[in-house]
Amino acid sequence: MNVGVILSGGQAPGGHNVISGLFDGIKKLNPNNKLYGFLLGPGGLVDHKYMELTADIIDEYRNTGGFDIIGSGRTKLEKKDQFDKGLEILKQLDIKALVIIGGDDSNTNACVLAEYYKAINAGVQVIGCPKTIDGDLKNSEIEASFGFDTATKVYSEVIGNIMRDCNSAKKYWHFIKLMGRSASHVTLECALQTHPNVTLIGEEVEAKNQTLDDIVTYIAQVVADRANQGMNYGVALVPEGLIEFIPAIKKLISELNDMLAANQAEFDTVADDKKIDYVLSKLSAENAAIFKSLPIAVSRQLEQLLAEMVGKKLAQWKKEGKYNGKFATQHHFFGYEGRCAAPSNWDADYCYSLGFNASMLIASGKTGYMSSVKNTFKPVDEWVAGGIPITMMMNMEKRAGEMKPVIKKALVELDGAPYKFFVSKRDEWASKTSFVYPGPIQYFGPTEVCDRPTITLSLEHQK
Amino acid sequence: MNVGVILSGGQAPGGHNVISGLFDGIKKLNPNNKLYGFLLGPGGLVDHKYMELTADIIDEYRNTGGFDIIGSGRTKLEKKDQFDKGLEILKQLDIKALVIIGGDDSNTNACVLAEYYKAINAGVQVIGCPKTIDGDLKNSEIEASFGFDTATKVYSEVIGNIMRDCNSAKKYWHFIKLMGRSASHVTLECALQTHPNVTLIGEEVEAKNQTLDDIVTYIAQVVADRANQGMNYGVALVPEGLIEFIPAIKKLISELNDMLAANQAEFDTVADDKKIDYVLSKLSAENAAIFKSLPIAVSRQLEQLLAEMVGKKLAQWKKEGKYNGKFATQHHFFGYEGRCAAPSNWDADYCYSLGFNASMLIASGKTGYMSSVKNTFKPVDEWVAGGIPITMMMNMEKRAGEMKPVIKKALVELDGAPYKFFVSKRDEWASKTSFVYPGPIQYFGPTEVCDRPTITLSLEHQK
Repeated sequence: MNVGVILSGGQAPGGHNVISGLFDGIKKLNPNNKLYGFLLGPGGLVDHKYMELTADIIDEYRNTGGFDIIGSGRTKLEKKDQFDKGLEILKQLDIKALVIIGGDDSNTNACVLAEYYKAINAGVQVIGCPKTIDGDLKNSEIEASFGFDTATKVYSEVIGNIMRDCNSAKKYWHFIKLMGRSASHVTLECALQTHPNVTLIGEEVEAKNQTLDDIVTYIAQVVADRANQGMNYGVALVPEGLIEFIPAIKKLISELNDMLAANQAEFDTVADDKKIDYVLSKLSAENAAIFKSLPIAVSRQLEQLLAEMVGKKLAQWKKEGKYNGKFATQHHFFGYEGRCAAPSNWDADYCYSLGFNASMLIASGKTGYMSSVKNTFKPVDEWVAGGIPITMMMNMEKRAGEMKPVIKKALVELDGAPYKFFVSKRDEWASKTSFVYPGPIQYFGPTEVCDRPTITLSLEHQK
Repeated sequence: MNVGVILSGGQAPGGHNVISGLFDGIKKLNPNNKLYGFLLGPGGLVDHKYMELTADIIDEYRNTGGFDIIGSGRTKLEKKDQFDKGLEILKQLDIKALVIIGGDDSNTNACVLAEYYKAINAGVQVIGCPKTIDGDLKNSEIEASFGFDTATKVYSEVIGNIMRDCNSAKKYWHFIKLMGRSASHVTLECALQTHPNVTLIGEEVEAKNQTLDDIVTYIAQVVADRANQGMNYGVALVPEGLIEFIPAIKKLISELNDMLAANQAEFDTVADDKKIDYVLSKLSAENAAIFKSLPIAVSRQLEQLLAEMVGKKLAQWKKEGKYNGKFATQHHFFGYEGRCAAPSNWDADYCYSLGFNASMLIASGKTGYMSSVKNTFKPVDEWVAGGIPITMMMNMEKRAGEMKPVIKKALVELDGAPYKFFVSKRDEWASKTSFVYPGPIQYFGPTEVCDRPTITLSLEHQK
């Protein structure tokens, strides 16, 4: 029984352990079983680029970060000719099952591929594994996507270091943008770990229909209140997806993208110091006004944009006698720093379990299933392995004009325990300095069970 | 015998351990001795802001990062009236010795203060401790400033994570700027730890009298050579002080600063989209031309500036048929992430030793000495404690028009072992992918001696 494996999409810590677990699982079933890795993502299957993963190779990558063992890529497996092209090489290598390690879209496609191979009696099973640091692939059956634990711990380490600096120097407001696509899970978890003075949650901005000015005013108010207490410093966390939740900005970005797509060649010929005038000349009056209101040098950098607008608001309040502090800022963006960190103990165990478990699902003849390990907020010997039909997680959504079954992206739930706990602490963290400095991830041997999961996961499963 | 302590200047990991060591030292001499901390830097001495540091407080801060135990500040102790004002509170608290924890300037000032108190028979000794993450306070007597070890390990952790991401995704060039003021020690050490494809060393740029175009061409050539091998990705390290070593840019920045200082009020009234025209109208023709040649949105962000100029150069080479790769970039700046990290085992031990040793220098009646711990590249039981007269490290330099004795800032020595080792590997690291992923700092108990010092320190003392 030969097996193929594909890494799909953005890196997440622990991918190598999924592959190691899968390797150990199929070798335990039969030492003659072979594991093939398709190179640089799903494209490797279509283009027949692959390598056999032997014990020597696997051993070099156990418990390491990154996806460099076989590389990853963003080619989407969606079309029949891709499926057929892939089947050629699967047949040639005598592969009976394909494991696709990816996020919501990749698992959606894994499901469609499984259905197709089943329908044509191709004799190839397809199993998915839930991967993404963004934390937006989870539901009643999948507790967490792998990588979220490590990435949020790495970000919290550096956020904590910055907080300690902030609280020592007492002179800067640090604006920290965090990766996480649309969802604010990463930002929320880092807030729970480190207790910043300001945390923006995109899902809340949308639910409350807040404008950019609402957000700027909220931050400025926290800054002013702290200044009143003599604290002209603080830390603000901003999710990278925030912008998508602000209607006016969303419209501007959309028009900018369309305009640039249509005029790229002409735009490239415009001199650097004339580019802004060019852009303004092409935008609608409404969006041109918004564009003009944005700080010039930072229009693509969210955390700087917010900081500059807060600065303007505070300058106005100063004139009105409502504020009398100092506001100096530093900016940071963390994303690539966490996607390829060595996996935390939790992610290392979870990923190995997901991979080993995938081999069991294959052995029991399943296809179109996602490998599932539950109870992971408890000690490892209470973890429960299983498999979930991917179709169970599907919803109908409009994609490119057509209704399609897709795995729903999990956004932060405003009635969920992590968000509610955050809200219960938000004002205290804003007005006081309650920073927590988590420090770097520490590694323990396999017999230790002292690593704790994310606070998000703990709160979600608190009784 | 009561003692006062001051944290001066930028944060560095281990400051709390210097204070803990000092506390334990003076309490061992006599449990009735008291330690007072002056608040928010040297200003606390002048303004009589202080707190007694008791065992309870000290115990809370042992082995933690940050300077938040008493805060730090950048007030310079330089004038007679400051010295006299400080003496009032020192007398009032019956303080016999003052320990100043700081960088080159702070230790220069500590020396002057010691001389002054000696000259007027004030009965107050002054002892310095060598602190700075920049690594630019070292000489034949001082092996290393504390904080450099931890900061470079934290930066190398995140650089390593980015490298693993780079080597997994294989699609970006990451430009990473690193803190370190003028000197390139931090960048060199991080390069030695992680093996990036491009590392710029400011001291080399100056020695070779390189222009911005020389630097851009060097980077573009490495990018093109890697592209020829099919590798359209890589990592480049840029020291923040680089810009000071490029003559043309230095002149432009100087004129910009002067112009803005003279016209700030008017500049503030100029509309955002007219600010660039305004700046151009005020600059000399030579500097206006350089300013125009810089990418518009990034003129204050060195790592982005270099990346955009490399992009332009490559676009030109593409037209000429000399280059046929892809060049997409990501940008990072690391500084605040490392200054307040929990100290590495090495820094924790070194700092505690510096502080404890300071109490011994005080007990033996020294003043104007820097606490010194040598042989730190060997196991801890071979470390050698002592004291160095700060005057021994002094050179005459022109400051504000006058010749003054100052501790010379240590730049990267181009005939030193760390730089020479780097040069011997540079081309290999450029053309191959030899990335090292050091991972997060791990902590061990006090009986362990397995932590290694920086590679810089090891190479400097290699026999």
